[in-house]
Amino acid sequence: MSTMREVAVIGIGITKFGEIWDKSLRQLGLEAGFQAILDAGISGDDIDALYIGNMSSGSAIAQEHIAPLFADQVGLTRGHIPATGIEAASASGGLAFRQGYLAVAAGQHDIVVVGGAEKMSDTNPAETIETLSSGADREWEVFFGATLPSLWAMMARRHMHEFGTTAEQLAKVVVKNHKMAIYNPMAQYQSELKLEVILNAPRVAEPLGVFDCAPASDGAAAVVLCSMEKAKSICELPIKIIGSGQASDTMALHDRKSLTQIDSTIYAARRAFKQANKTIKDINVAEMHDAYSISEIIAMEDLGLVEKGAGGKAVEDGLTDLNGELPTNTSGGLKARGHPPGATGVAQIVEIVSQLRGKVEGRQVKDARFGLTHNLGGTGGTAIVHIFEGVA
Amino acid sequence: MSTMREVAVIGIGITKFGEIWDKSLRQLGLEAGFQAILDAGISGDDIDALYIGNMSSGSAIAQEHIAPLFADQVGLTRGHIPATGIEAASASGGLAFRQGYLAVAAGQHDIVVVGGAEKMSDTNPAETIETLSSGADREWEVFFGATLPSLWAMMARRHMHEFGTTAEQLAKVVVKNHKMAIYNPMAQYQSELKLEVILNAPRVAEPLGVFDCAPASDGAAAVVLCSMEKAKSICELPIKIIGSGQASDTMALHDRKSLTQIDSTIYAARRAFKQANKTIKDINVAEMHDAYSISEIIAMEDLGLVEKGAGGKAVEDGLTDLNGELPTNTSGGLKARGHPPGATGVAQIVEIVSQLRGKVEGRQVKDARFGLTHNLGGTGGTAIVHIFEGVA
Repeated sequence: MSTMREVAVIGIGITKFGEIWDKSLRQLGLEAGFQAILDAGISGDDIDALYIGNMSSGSAIAQEHIAPLFADQVGLTRGHIPATGIEAASASGGLAFRQGYLAVAAGQHDIVVVGGAEKMSDTNPAETIETLSSGADREWEVFFGATLPSLWAMMARRHMHEFGTTAEQLAKVVVKNHKMAIYNPMAQYQSELKLEVILNAPRVAEPLGVFDCAPASDGAAAVVLCSMEKAKSICELPIKIIGSGQASDTMALHDRKSLTQIDSTIYAARRAFKQANKTIKDINVAEMHDAYSISEIIAMEDLGLVEKGAGGKAVEDGLTDLNGELPTNTSGGLKARGHPPGATGVAQIVEIVSQLRGKVEGRQVKDARFGLTHNLGGTGGTAIVHIFEGVA
Repeated sequence: MSTMREVAVIGIGITKFGEIWDKSLRQLGLEAGFQAILDAGISGDDIDALYIGNMSSGSAIAQEHIAPLFADQVGLTRGHIPATGIEAASASGGLAFRQGYLAVAAGQHDIVVVGGAEKMSDTNPAETIETLSSGADREWEVFFGATLPSLWAMMARRHMHEFGTTAEQLAKVVVKNHKMAIYNPMAQYQSELKLEVILNAPRVAEPLGVFDCAPASDGAAAVVLCSMEKAKSICELPIKIIGSGQASDTMALHDRKSLTQIDSTIYAARRAFKQANKTIKDINVAEMHDAYSISEIIAMEDLGLVEKGAGGKAVEDGLTDLNGELPTNTSGGLKARGHPPGATGVAQIVEIVSQLRGKVEGRQVKDARFGLTHNLGGTGGTAIVHIFEGVA
């Protein structure tokens, strides 16, 4: 690991998230990819390799082999560059980014494009819930009727039981993230959501209502990675990756020692913080995986921002508000920006890079120098944590 | 790249391939994984990371997020090690191996397990052809009625037209590979197949009959990778990876300049041979991607074994027979060993490692020192080539 090179993000691109009926998966990928390449100010011939995160194109649109398809769409077939597809349920984007980062850090490539994309609207809602649930354990959980929301609902219920977390506290995560999304033109829901509306919404799986759950969205995001050495001559404001952590856990919840703690997050964060030689106290802005309102509360705890059990109260106290101690999910998060599983992990990075560049409209975190992204697959079978440094 | 460490395969495992009705995907993965770990003589705690190749578990058995699932099944969740899922259609296994190799070569990990697995029998045959075809371009090829076999059939037809390749020559690839599989107890079809039977079999897509096509199989394979430095103290006969190449091409055939040449193979081979500082003349035993009889002939040409167009004649002349100049697909190949897409690339490596260890029953290539594997996704959107050296 001592031979690892420094790596920076030098370009970002993202599509509008939502129900994008008039664009196909490949069009979305193309749009985000071109934006990132243009933003980096490079040309296609500069790109050494492509890494693509996608969860469900096989079952959703009967298309596998996504990575060369995207290379093809973006016009990168001339050099026959390597194009690698990564799947880790809703952590597919974050893991694709990590693979691209490691390839540049190892000196294998100089410039790499990482993309994440998903198309969920082309399937019917019953299929969508099946697709999302295929990130959990099919044989031991989903086969018996559990769905991804119901598994997270069990975690929420247990969190309430153990720590007195309230439905209001869960709902406040949602209120905060919707408030942030108002300023994000790429967000699926650019609208405030009142506490009472969230609390009185139809239930998906008690105690989670429909507004406690992130939508299953269409969308794509892409970033350009470059060795720091080379980045300095290409880019005015390269954003450095100073920590990368990946960890796994059991697929089935019943095999874990606790329902209120996600060990993969703890281990991934430990690895990323160790590499960065930082702690959560150093972080100025974060994107956490809020697939469900409870997910963000558990993430806050597992990332070490607050003690286990104190997440609900901390949200209530505004710790993660835009002007709080650690502004979290300024993009709107999975909840309000939208959640196309393969794109989410990359979209989080697009937001953090934007924040560390210091010029986000409406939701800029002042003097942000260090940023963190936290991306989960399923109920935490995979966790990916990255830490970034802007040249403040 | 100059800082890359030497890496060796120190353990191999493979299940019986075929219609394995009594074992699930996770059981197959478990079986191959355990075998590889036992063969390497290491324990679970020695393993730093897992890379899993799988094409279609999402659409075939509604299970995504395969990598942590396998970590879980093999009992590797205690250390919360990274588990990364790779998808590249029928090159998923080969690409997973390459990712694992690069991670060890870069010094990121010391010991890595790479697995490939697929479960095709749990879907009906109509779905199976859909699944296989999702490795081609859904919007520009498959939507209009093309299937993976019909696309390869077009390539075969054109090869016949341009170079005078005959149906008999295609069939002789199959005769050879079935003859090899007789000695492979893990092969799906341990039976000879007569030329007339192949030629008179029902047609799948002219000029390809049912016996020109590899089966869609269940099965799993796994290998243990280790830094060469560490391998010497663990393993008597580490098999060194001396070249690794990956390349992509357009997904749709109509975007390529030729139907009889697969550029991704040419580029992947060039990269692997360059790294190894070898040519095809140095190779003593090879596994080539014979998803269809024509695939092996085109691969022979693109890998540089013979001139373009001379593949059919070379097969007829016995160039790739067990006692030929370059014995090819001694395992039986995809055709007779069987073809579970995610497992195939890893199974090829299991065969080459076995050959370079020098103790294969019945089909051992004498004095084999250098081996090659060639793994394709779809019609060549992805190609992966690896070169191995045994300590002869």
